[in-house]
Amino acid sequence: MPAVPTDPADRPLAPEVADLLRRDPDGLVAAVVQQHDSGEVLMLAWMDDEALHRTLTTGRATYWSRSRNEYWVKGETSGNRQWVRDVRLDCDGDALLVLVDQEGPPCHTGERSCFHRPLVAAEGSAS
Amino acid sequence: MPAVPTDPADRPLAPEVADLLRRDPDGLVAAVVQQHDSGEVLMLAWMDDEALHRTLTTGRATYWSRSRNEYWVKGETSGNRQWVRDVRLDCDGDALLVLVDQEGPPCHTGERSCFHRPLVAAEGSAS
Repeated sequence: MPAVPTDPADRPLAPEVADLLRRDPDGLVAAVVQQHDSGEVLMLAWMDDEALHRTLTTGRATYWSRSRNEYWVKGETSGNRQWVRDVRLDCDGDALLVLVDQEGPPCHTGERSCFHRPLVAAEGSAS
Repeated sequence: MPAVPTDPADRPLAPEVADLLRRDPDGLVAAVVQQHDSGEVLMLAWMDDEALHRTLTTGRATYWSRSRNEYWVKGETSGNRQWVRDVRLDCDGDALLVLVDQEGPPCHTGERSCFHRPLVAAEGSAS
């Protein structure tokens, strides 16, 4: 009989959470990341069950990188870490809202949010 | 020589905007929808070029419904309309942030946000 791991991070995602997820064909759900106090939307990333489990159990936001095909602990390389304050699932189960405390800029461009390119002006000027 | 449509909504998405999008295999980008003043994240939906174009030119948030395979003007049936204040693209072009003024509840459950199911407690109680 195998021993039950004592560290929650070593156990899989709780079935009552896993049952709520409606994953895309790649097994992923979208994760909207928001600064918990200012309300600023920082970025959008992707999680599979294991990334969500690590996020919930370690307190560090962990994603699945679709370009590199690997888990990615935000800030592990850059130092711009995300400390998880809350995680909420949407009504149809295919998107998460991850409330974090962001260290430094979340975007690789150095911007305070990855959503820094305005489109309304661009479309307006073209019409 | 065809006449140039005078109504911007009748013209396609401006090429300088379309060129910035990095669409998924279904031609879609994710759209994070946020209440412009409170900062509350309301929902996640999907847009193709045409939905984005309609959103930018009509001022009413318009999405592509992946379940119904049709365009969907938010609030057209429920009356819970979204008036667009700003649209921003993220650094890698696969997600939009749509800042809106939301009339009534955005969620079909009547909640003030679609992200109303907490997961931290669920995972914690299972460990």
